[in-house]
Amino acid sequence: MANPVDLVEVWRGDLLECVHQGHAVVCDDTGQVVAAWGDPETVTYPRSSCKMIQALPLLESGAGAHLTPEQLALACASHNGAAIHTDRVKAWLDDLGLTDDAFRCGPQMPADRDARNGLIRADQRPCQVHNNCSGKHAGFLTLTKHLKAGSDYELIDHPVQQACKAAFEEVTEENSPVFGIDGCSAPNHACTVHGLARAMAFFATAGDRSDRRSDAAQKLTSAMMRYPELVAGETRACTELMRAMDGKAAIKTGAEGVFIAIIPEKRLGIALKITDGATRASEAVIAALLVKYGVLDAGHPAAQARMNPPIKNRRAIETGFMRPAAILGL
Amino acid sequence: MANPVDLVEVWRGDLLECVHQGHAVVCDDTGQVVAAWGDPETVTYPRSSCKMIQALPLLESGAGAHLTPEQLALACASHNGAAIHTDRVKAWLDDLGLTDDAFRCGPQMPADRDARNGLIRADQRPCQVHNNCSGKHAGFLTLTKHLKAGSDYELIDHPVQQACKAAFEEVTEENSPVFGIDGCSAPNHACTVHGLARAMAFFATAGDRSDRRSDAAQKLTSAMMRYPELVAGETRACTELMRAMDGKAAIKTGAEGVFIAIIPEKRLGIALKITDGATRASEAVIAALLVKYGVLDAGHPAAQARMNPPIKNRRAIETGFMRPAAILGL
Repeated sequence: MANPVDLVEVWRGDLLECVHQGHAVVCDDTGQVVAAWGDPETVTYPRSSCKMIQALPLLESGAGAHLTPEQLALACASHNGAAIHTDRVKAWLDDLGLTDDAFRCGPQMPADRDARNGLIRADQRPCQVHNNCSGKHAGFLTLTKHLKAGSDYELIDHPVQQACKAAFEEVTEENSPVFGIDGCSAPNHACTVHGLARAMAFFATAGDRSDRRSDAAQKLTSAMMRYPELVAGETRACTELMRAMDGKAAIKTGAEGVFIAIIPEKRLGIALKITDGATRASEAVIAALLVKYGVLDAGHPAAQARMNPPIKNRRAIETGFMRPAAILGL
Repeated sequence: MANPVDLVEVWRGDLLECVHQGHAVVCDDTGQVVAAWGDPETVTYPRSSCKMIQALPLLESGAGAHLTPEQLALACASHNGAAIHTDRVKAWLDDLGLTDDAFRCGPQMPADRDARNGLIRADQRPCQVHNNCSGKHAGFLTLTKHLKAGSDYELIDHPVQQACKAAFEEVTEENSPVFGIDGCSAPNHACTVHGLARAMAFFATAGDRSDRRSDAAQKLTSAMMRYPELVAGETRACTELMRAMDGKAAIKTGAEGVFIAIIPEKRLGIALKITDGATRASEAVIAALLVKYGVLDAGHPAAQARMNPPIKNRRAIETGFMRPAAILGL
């Protein structure tokens, strides 16, 4: 975690109250660094930002040939557990002839307010389908069935996870030095921020190529851009910013301050890591970089809400604001 | 925010995933720095960590002479909005002949799960009494009534806030360079981390002195230590760590990564600020410093839960851990 730079400032009144540091890399389709802040060679976990990589084997294997773009968007999602998400994932489970018990992601209270309050009012506990990763796990189960592999699809030695690891190392063009266990129990392979940006440039340029992996990458990117509401949900940065860009970029958040962007029309991939793990900062920086690279209108309310949000108190009085650090050049 | 140092590490598997930086100061009753990490002269907002300072005028004025230790603990609290808190604050309002409308803190959904779920099930919105600062505001209202001052007690020019500012500058021994508006709409005066630690050493040694302010400081500190559950609530760091220390220290969290400790038996005050504002880090550092200064047993479950917590995923699998940085010398 050496040499991060200040990327986001949090002001209250006339005093800088907090600073978020991190590393960010913009990479082109040759793997070259177009721009970087902090140290591009910092190794970190991409967490959920790499779900489109974890979905590559699902399509490359042919297991997901019948899946709809909505299902592909859900395979790449960290969703809110709203009805629009859970209804579709339940139907997907039905198609597989499986029930909630087949999941290995664990239950999670939905982030979606209506879904959460509905469970509370009914005095019900959340199921595994409510887990923000349930679409990814439906993809894992689909590949597991196709491979006729064991039910413990989340384990590192399982054919599904071995395929995910191979795809991850190939698109990042790195040998992952270490893996961690993610919130949903799947392995999460570490890479450099540069490697993650390089992988996103691979996705950004997939439409140029006709090989099986590029075809899969292009389908996944398109699905994310087409169904922003399935990739996250109402009020979330991924959804609101993708809607604002209207097909110009696919973006994805990851826990502990990670964000990526795939920008086909610019042939660029972006990856960033906030050192302290703050989501408010990763959202501000990705919005700033999307503006900087011309795919997000700085004046769009969704851009302002993430890049320069006012900080309001419990009487809605504006008490401060956040802004990208000057080093980002906005 | 110059020259913070790494204070907390967050590990996942064998990789350092996040780092939290900050400033921490331990001060004795002469105002001397006993130990410091980062820059003691960093200026920041104490946020809710200074509620015991904001309660000084309530007692010094005589307005709060009739208040119980429970009420004094609530005046210093950032509470969970549980029934144990709101029932007492409502009764306090009744005593004043006022209703929830007299508050200027704004409504807040309770952090306490039972209280929150109760509101959701009843389809009710939270009131101002649920605001974590409602005890502080009950204190403000008590002083306002005593002074026969206007109802806009949260404004900087109001006699209540002028008294709070004077007390703040006197116990920090600094002229506050700037104030911000807090989440509850009250002014929050900035000071150095050193100044905040110095103020806490004033509280720690108040029992030695017999002046009016010291008497007030001693009563507030005692009330906090006597009623840890009123200062925060179940599952919260302030409550669990004060219970574990059983009267050896009063501690208080503040938003955006602030924490203070008042340690009468060691005649020490502690203040710390996490640069990125992370609560998980401020809690880890205060627990580490309380252990370091001999008032918290490192092996106590409450100490371990804040200082070296395992990170568990949605299937309760341990995926990582947090720990204080080596520089803290534990």
